[in-house]
Amino acid sequence: MTLVKTLFLISDFGTSDTYVAQMKAVILSRCSCSVAIVDLTHDVKAGSIREGAFHLSVSRNCIPAGSVVLAVIDPGVGTARRGVVCEIDGAFYIGPDNGLFGLLPITRAWQLPDPQAGSSRTFHGRDVFAPACARLISDPGWVEFLEPVCRENLILTEMEIPVLVDDGLQVTIAHIDNFGNIILWLPASSEFHPSFLQLPGGRIEPVTEVETYSEHPGILFLQGSQNLMEIAVSCGSASDHLGVSTGDMITLIRERDR
Amino acid sequence: MTLVKTLFLISDFGTSDTYVAQMKAVILSRCSCSVAIVDLTHDVKAGSIREGAFHLSVSRNCIPAGSVVLAVIDPGVGTARRGVVCEIDGAFYIGPDNGLFGLLPITRAWQLPDPQAGSSRTFHGRDVFAPACARLISDPGWVEFLEPVCRENLILTEMEIPVLVDDGLQVTIAHIDNFGNIILWLPASSEFHPSFLQLPGGRIEPVTEVETYSEHPGILFLQGSQNLMEIAVSCGSASDHLGVSTGDMITLIRERDR
Amino acid sequence: MTLVKTLFLISDFGTSDTYVAQMKAVILSRCSCSVAIVDLTHDVKAGSIREGAFHLSVSRNCIPAGSVVLAVIDPGVGTARRGVVCEIDGAFYIGPDNGLFGLLPITRAWQLPDPQAGSSRTFHGRDVFAPACARLISDPGWVEFLEPVCRENLILTEMEIPVLVDDGLQVTIAHIDNFGNIILWLPASSEFHPSFLQLPGGRIEPVTEVETYSEHPGILFLQGSQNLMEIAVSCGSASDHLGVSTGDMITLIRERDR
Repeated sequence: MTLVKTLFLISDFGTSDTYVAQMKAVILSRCSCSVAIVDLTHDVKAGSIREGAFHLSVSRNCIPAGSVVLAVIDPGVGTARRGVVCEIDGAFYIGPDNGLFGLLPITRAWQLPDPQAGSSRTFHGRDVFAPACARLISDPGWVEFLEPVCRENLILTEMEIPVLVDDGLQVTIAHIDNFGNIILWLPASSEFHPSFLQLPGGRIEPVTEVETYSEHPGILFLQGSQNLMEIAVSCGSASDHLGVSTGDMITLIRERDR
Repeated sequence: MTLVKTLFLISDFGTSDTYVAQMKAVILSRCSCSVAIVDLTHDVKAGSIREGAFHLSVSRNCIPAGSVVLAVIDPGVGTARRGVVCEIDGAFYIGPDNGLFGLLPITRAWQLPDPQAGSSRTFHGRDVFAPACARLISDPGWVEFLEPVCRENLILTEMEIPVLVDDGLQVTIAHIDNFGNIILWLPASSEFHPSFLQLPGGRIEPVTEVETYSEHPGILFLQGSQNLMEIAVSCGSASDHLGVSTGDMITLIRERDR
Repeated sequence: MTLVKTLFLISDFGTSDTYVAQMKAVILSRCSCSVAIVDLTHDVKAGSIREGAFHLSVSRNCIPAGSVVLAVIDPGVGTARRGVVCEIDGAFYIGPDNGLFGLLPITRAWQLPDPQAGSSRTFHGRDVFAPACARLISDPGWVEFLEPVCRENLILTEMEIPVLVDDGLQVTIAHIDNFGNIILWLPASSEFHPSFLQLPGGRIEPVTEVETYSEHPGILFLQGSQNLMEIAVSCGSASDHLGVSTGDMITLIRERDR
């Protein structure tokens, strides 16, 4: 049904430099068909493969089959780390093989050819991955000419799995969003119903399970929009209120666990 | 004359998360025609319906007839507040009925159907409004199948109207822009010519009426580009210089009022 | 090969206001052909013609012939400064004649017609330059009807040229990027190989010449992706580490200069 292909971009380049635009310019000038460009985000913390992997993981369900995703969080640019194309849900993800795609259910993967002579060793996003995107957008059959990579040989990102402990369920903070909502590495389907939560410093706070952000005062526990459970505060920032950050661990406590 | 329709987006999502991209992905994957996407801004203060209403108000003249505007400043997401389509100058605005469109001259309005089963209750921007946008972009006649809403029943945003006081004209600061220019809720057509302004704390400052930002030193009063009067400082931030914020009131004083 | 023309935008408007969107809306509504829009950046420091000129200079190689570039860092908006179209590498740059294009190899230049009655004197980006962009995108032959400007009469931006001093080579910091990499006004082709660098305060630090950002600890000197030499720190911000800013001067010292 889609008329034009969509290219999604994610990077840690920020938007104060022209690096993102330079990649887009290369892609647009080399595509032999129309392409719509959507920025996932360029505000990933510099070099944070884990944050990039999170964003790719939660966006995955929105990426239509046939799309191309260019992901450039690439602290090892210019070194031996290889570039790859990964097929996920019928979309093609291009970027460094450094764990960025490690949370996605990869069907097939291919290695990108070595950079051409004259490529910079400091900006493969523009000089290696962007041309590969343009190639793939123009001719999806191109991957069949690349060298396949065994999925087992791709760099992994370890998923932060909830751990049952005496006091309840210990979960890791996956991300703090723009509203200060605390997104947990706890699937929305997990059916765990806490009455309290214990913060990194040991403090215990009561929590109310709700369905929307604004129906109840206090600290809220709810199914977010990213298929993960969230901790929120109505009309406020839960992360500011609780003083927690991405990567911190929180213990969810049921009434009967106390 | 326009070849493709334009979709304008405004939200309080920021650009550090992939929420905006998730909405765009849904829209692009469901449109049966080409669409150009323009971000109005996503930096609206979290939950600030008033700031969203300001931005929609000042952008209105630039939105071509036939465009679709998706506005998601939606602190009540998932609660009883309804979703609406509003027709303004031949363009269609989609979002929550919470006052966001309250400063616009709405011609007609319709209620969106209730969310489908499986929609999140925390992200109607993606799960309810984005599909409605795609539907409307693909088939503008769709609105005729929706339930009309009487304009009088839409949630209002109160316009901050200038008030004549003994000392002059009391006006509210509508917005501080990126340059620190102070945009007032005072129409450019108001023909009020102050010589002084009184700040919230009582301090009185001389002001010079000018036509451009850079022709005169000191505190400037001029017709801005948003059809509202502005207070500015040449090569500097007027809001920093005067220590004022959005929502503060300033009294404009004519020579003869003193 | 490109199917649609690309319009590149740069400004100091930020993205918290709708000014950028207002320009895009004007352009899209007036173009008689499809156009892809790419934001170079809108985070140029307010009024910093020099920063705008830097970004245009380093992006230049990525701008395809036939593109249009709209550049609005325009502190003198509404005053006597004229608007111009400059042809560079077969692309057309539109904006104020204030030095913004002063680092680019301009082939030909034309003066824009005076603003039409009813144009604001505070937002030529939207009211003068955007319509000119739309005109030029729709009909590249339009420039032939404009008044040519002699390149010598355009406002210049002085290039910061490296200076040989007793202690080595004195270079100016052109830009600090999002990663804290220090981009120098020293062409990548300059073949100067320092062993030390002297900071503005006089401190001397050893520096290692490398090819990538991550192969070596300490302070690195390398060929960046913008055709300029850079000072970097592996997995960190060189500008934070060294306490330097754009415009500061650094002396590069060879072993034999000491």
